[in-house]
Amino acid sequence: MKNKRAVVLLSGGLDSATVLYLAREKGYTVTCLIFDYGQRHRREIEAAKKIASGAGCPYIVEKIRLNNDTSALLNKGRKVPCYHAGRNIPSTYVPARNIIFLSYALFFAESLKAQAIFIGAHAQDYSGYPDCRPEFLKAFERAAQLGTAFGAKGGIRIAAPLVNKGKAEIINIGMRLKVPYQLTWSCYKGGRAPCGRCDSCYYRAKGFKEAGVRDPAL
Amino acid sequence: MKNKRAVVLLSGGLDSATVLYLAREKGYTVTCLIFDYGQRHRREIEAAKKIASGAGCPYIVEKIRLNNDTSALLNKGRKVPCYHAGRNIPSTYVPARNIIFLSYALFFAESLKAQAIFIGAHAQDYSGYPDCRPEFLKAFERAAQLGTAFGAKGGIRIAAPLVNKGKAEIINIGMRLKVPYQLTWSCYKGGRAPCGRCDSCYYRAKGFKEAGVRDPAL
Repeated sequence: MKNKRAVVLLSGGLDSATVLYLAREKGYTVTCLIFDYGQRHRREIEAAKKIASGAGCPYIVEKIRLNNDTSALLNKGRKVPCYHAGRNIPSTYVPARNIIFLSYALFFAESLKAQAIFIGAHAQDYSGYPDCRPEFLKAFERAAQLGTAFGAKGGIRIAAPLVNKGKAEIINIGMRLKVPYQLTWSCYKGGRAPCGRCDSCYYRAKGFKEAGVRDPAL
Repeated sequence: MKNKRAVVLLSGGLDSATVLYLAREKGYTVTCLIFDYGQRHRREIEAAKKIASGAGCPYIVEKIRLNNDTSALLNKGRKVPCYHAGRNIPSTYVPARNIIFLSYALFFAESLKAQAIFIGAHAQDYSGYPDCRPEFLKAFERAAQLGTAFGAKGGIRIAAPLVNKGKAEIINIGMRLKVPYQLTWSCYKGGRAPCGRCDSCYYRAKGFKEAGVRDPAL
């Protein structure tokens, strides 16, 4: 297909950066969608902009308000959880976040006549976050196809190419595609350097170690 | 069930006002969710606030930005369509609008521990709007259950009690429930009085006529 278009949800972390490069490899002309949703820090938004620009892709920064004090990612008064191996949903979970993100992506996809929405949801996420699970993504795709004018014509796909990958595999894909991981930001905290202790830092460090690659952001 | 809670999507029109009173009749404690999404006029937001207050329900006005120039409801430069009986999607369609509205409702429902989200989608709408169709609402409900922490426990239902009703039936239900239709606003335009010519005015007038009731807003 000529002139394939996609919307890529870009968070500033390494998963979505890898997905951006995968979408481009698959021949899509990409528009990046970055959310400013009241994160604890601006670091990841700035990282996302640099990643989009570095890939030569236009981006939209969509400012949305998610007023909810149950999530540690939004409420600066709550402690960010350190690594845990439990099965419970982490306190960094923001209710319905990916559903809201995907809904906006759908709005832009319809406007841009894009055929796909790419999201960096992956295996490790759905140990904790219900909205990263493949069953959810499939169900959302179905709703998107039924609920939009263009989707009804079979036009829209929710692509989650990392959904069954571990962090090390993702990093290996990214190294092959020359994803500029030095631009990515994973830490839940917004200090000058990553804290090295939060869930996100833990999984990132573990991933680079297992992939046998040095993290270029450190 | 004691202390049932619901989020009701309230637009200021007569369908969602009727749904609010239906939800209350079913024993729900209701929080109304009103969107300020850059509509052509403020009339319907003001109407929605009055309807919520009249019913003694708290409301949230959620300001969201839907930048898209393909819809006549958002772009003041485009002509609002007059009544048409065609099968095409009207130009007042806003891409993914109900998906975005429902996603936010889900966010608030999870925060409020609500068991249901009520939406006024109904039969006449889905002649034109894909996101009012029962298949879409069902698919979204499934995505919501899979994609949220509370939904996964079977906690969330998308209730569209008017989905198979015509306008006259809806008005008859509303008359029984004493819905203050004089507070509702249906016209796509924002003049001092309804224009009487747009799609929405046409269906409203037809509904009241068929129900054999005088429209108290006129």
